[in-house]
Amino acid sequence: MDALTQYLDQHRERFVDDLKAALRIPSVSTQPEHRDDVRRCAEHIAGHAKSLGMTRVEVVPTDGHPLVYAEWMGATGKPTVLLYGHYDVQPAEPLELWATPPFEPTLRDGKLYARGACDDKGQVYMHLKAIEAHMKVNGRLPVNLKAVIEGEEEVGSEHLESFLRARRAELRADVIVVSDTTMPGPDQPALCYGLRGILYTQIEVTGPAHDLHSGEFGGAVMNPANALCGIVAALKDSDGRITVPGFYDRVREISPEERERFRTTPFDEVDFIRGTGAAVAWGERGYTTLERISARPTLDVNGMWSGYTGPGSKTVLPSFAAAKVSMRLVPDQDPADLFPRFEAYVKRLAPPGVSMVVRDLHGAVPYLTEPDHPMMQAARRALARAWTKPPALIREGGSIPVMATFKETLDLPCILMGFGLHDDQVHGPNEKFSLSSFHGGTRSVAYLYEELARSG
Amino acid sequence: MDALTQYLDQHRERFVDDLKAALRIPSVSTQPEHRDDVRRCAEHIAGHAKSLGMTRVEVVPTDGHPLVYAEWMGATGKPTVLLYGHYDVQPAEPLELWATPPFEPTLRDGKLYARGACDDKGQVYMHLKAIEAHMKVNGRLPVNLKAVIEGEEEVGSEHLESFLRARRAELRADVIVVSDTTMPGPDQPALCYGLRGILYTQIEVTGPAHDLHSGEFGGAVMNPANALCGIVAALKDSDGRITVPGFYDRVREISPEERERFRTTPFDEVDFIRGTGAAVAWGERGYTTLERISARPTLDVNGMWSGYTGPGSKTVLPSFAAAKVSMRLVPDQDPADLFPRFEAYVKRLAPPGVSMVVRDLHGAVPYLTEPDHPMMQAARRALARAWTKPPALIREGGSIPVMATFKETLDLPCILMGFGLHDDQVHGPNEKFSLSSFHGGTRSVAYLYEELARSG
Repeated sequence: MDALTQYLDQHRERFVDDLKAALRIPSVSTQPEHRDDVRRCAEHIAGHAKSLGMTRVEVVPTDGHPLVYAEWMGATGKPTVLLYGHYDVQPAEPLELWATPPFEPTLRDGKLYARGACDDKGQVYMHLKAIEAHMKVNGRLPVNLKAVIEGEEEVGSEHLESFLRARRAELRADVIVVSDTTMPGPDQPALCYGLRGILYTQIEVTGPAHDLHSGEFGGAVMNPANALCGIVAALKDSDGRITVPGFYDRVREISPEERERFRTTPFDEVDFIRGTGAAVAWGERGYTTLERISARPTLDVNGMWSGYTGPGSKTVLPSFAAAKVSMRLVPDQDPADLFPRFEAYVKRLAPPGVSMVVRDLHGAVPYLTEPDHPMMQAARRALARAWTKPPALIREGGSIPVMATFKETLDLPCILMGFGLHDDQVHGPNEKFSLSSFHGGTRSVAYLYEELARSG
Repeated sequence: MDALTQYLDQHRERFVDDLKAALRIPSVSTQPEHRDDVRRCAEHIAGHAKSLGMTRVEVVPTDGHPLVYAEWMGATGKPTVLLYGHYDVQPAEPLELWATPPFEPTLRDGKLYARGACDDKGQVYMHLKAIEAHMKVNGRLPVNLKAVIEGEEEVGSEHLESFLRARRAELRADVIVVSDTTMPGPDQPALCYGLRGILYTQIEVTGPAHDLHSGEFGGAVMNPANALCGIVAALKDSDGRITVPGFYDRVREISPEERERFRTTPFDEVDFIRGTGAAVAWGERGYTTLERISARPTLDVNGMWSGYTGPGSKTVLPSFAAAKVSMRLVPDQDPADLFPRFEAYVKRLAPPGVSMVVRDLHGAVPYLTEPDHPMMQAARRALARAWTKPPALIREGGSIPVMATFKETLDLPCILMGFGLHDDQVHGPNEKFSLSSFHGGTRSVAYLYEELARSG
């Protein structure tokens, strides 16, 4: 066992303690009451990076939450890695569903439970601990490193782009590395070469100008909640296909080669569906579950509300109904192109007697890269070394909106090497990160820096 | 002008003040925090009835909110009227939509704004003030009177039936009088001879066992909110007809004679629809608006909720979605007969991958009587005297669930003589009662007692 691997093995427990310290800070970026906590978390991470020997460590103010920048540029002639991660987290609510408090990290059965354990503090700390190991064992990193750890990923990375644009020259690098994705199972590493995009909308339907008594007026005017149900129901057909005209025009069909790759990906569909608690799998006809969640677009209601929602019965004919409806997109779909089509279609579906507003809340373009790129090959070697088996090549269903920003501002190859598991409950109650993922991930990252040095 | 009419004219302002005192008590029966207010309101009304010379005044405890009982039995040989009304009110929320606070009654443009102004405290006070006038002018009432003013009408009159059954013998009467209905316009009195029934349900759809990340899982499992929309959308066809099998089997079609009566009812459809703020009328094909709201069944979503309903976007695939769905019924539909059909149909509409619960929250049978009954003739004479024009004979779209209870326990003819207007916003923000309704109604009731004495 080489000295690097030995160091990683010997300091496992302290690595977890270091991560716990970061998890205790409730850096919820969307909740104003946590504004100071977010800043405190940025400072904590900056301090930690400095203690590892990173140079030019900054907590960079933005018009929103600050980001952390740190670099180490001592590997002359070697490639430069731009590491991206985020230290902000999703809200922890509903708190009553957590078995242990979200900001008191707790170990149970080899898993660390806390908000942000997996998404994304745990995965940022894999990098920090890999850096530590190289620094302690060799006094240096095998590559040059520029780390950007932002505090607004969970609220749309609003101020990242201006930072990237402003520092474009200083951020010059050879490859981007992001650890914010998943692996198919606890023993199966993965390299991600695709992400879905998103178009997130809100449909608002107004019928009468104010709530009416459903006895006195029921039958005489269109009910906006009934109307909204009709509209949403019409957005998908019984084959699970989205009915928005032109929606599939730019969808890249899955090639036979890729379909074969999906077929051989170690993915336990039965286990995956069982983990959701749903009775059966259901999705677009003609595709497997793995294809449906990674290489096919979809449409989901994320939220919906109208009228009286308290206990018992209130005989109201509501004035207003709304639904948040988002579409996951695949290459080469573009949210900017699809929104006007969606809006026009939804308005066309509206029955008489209601007025409609359709809002574009949020968009991200899909991402797809070539898994045989030399940088990707380096990542595949690193993962194979760390886990003693080759990584699965996967596409992910979620979006990392910042990928589009990177593409636009820096245009670099990108390694998405993440270690989350599907049952990690990111964004939900009882988020966790398996220690096997954390330690295997740290080892993978440490090797990745070595492999990238070789490929450069 | 006779002495009675003179008294009614001279005391108008104080009558309004007396009503205001009752409106200041927030007797919201469905909200536990108002429990003491409800009792306080019962005591206030009992005290007022006593001060008018009513005898045997009681605040009768029930397993829920108390009811007020009062009588005057000094008209030997004359008919006995059982007066029914309610002093409880709907919740006032959303408070921010009220121009003036709901429990600070405010006069504007000849209208009194407050929760309960029309439904039903204002109409209860018409009776109390008519009683006052008879007592002050004649020292007696022309009929015997037994008044039951309950505190649970807005929550289903749960404990009224046991009271009626327990006191069945004591409550013996010749006619029931209820003032909780509407008139077609401010100058057009009406006598109501029909009410719709109701079946109020809640549809609950569960998909995954917990909320999921819509990127990671979107496309793989049935979304319960999408499923709910599909179910609700399928409950009505494009002609506005309800698709539940057998739903129309027991619907009494409108006879040519009644259709003619509807046609000649003074009802301004344009004004009625304009008052709702809806762009156009919409309802069951083949029927007029007046028919749709009174003599035809209908189905409305009263409330609906699922997933994330806060500002902005949250990428959640919700575990749960629910809708409150109620159907207004007409003779001879029966909620007890329809609920199992509705439940079976809704469950049949459910797509794979979700589990369903359909709850029966509340039911009331429809009501229809003969407008030429001698007691109804007395009411028609009273209204014609008070308003100097004959009353419209109408059917109402709402339900007074207690009518079924009266029918079952006492089986008496019933006079529904109400003075609400369609824009009174009962159950909504800015509920009001026009002073013209209040004073005209008080006069009508005073005359009704005289006319019933003549008809008995």
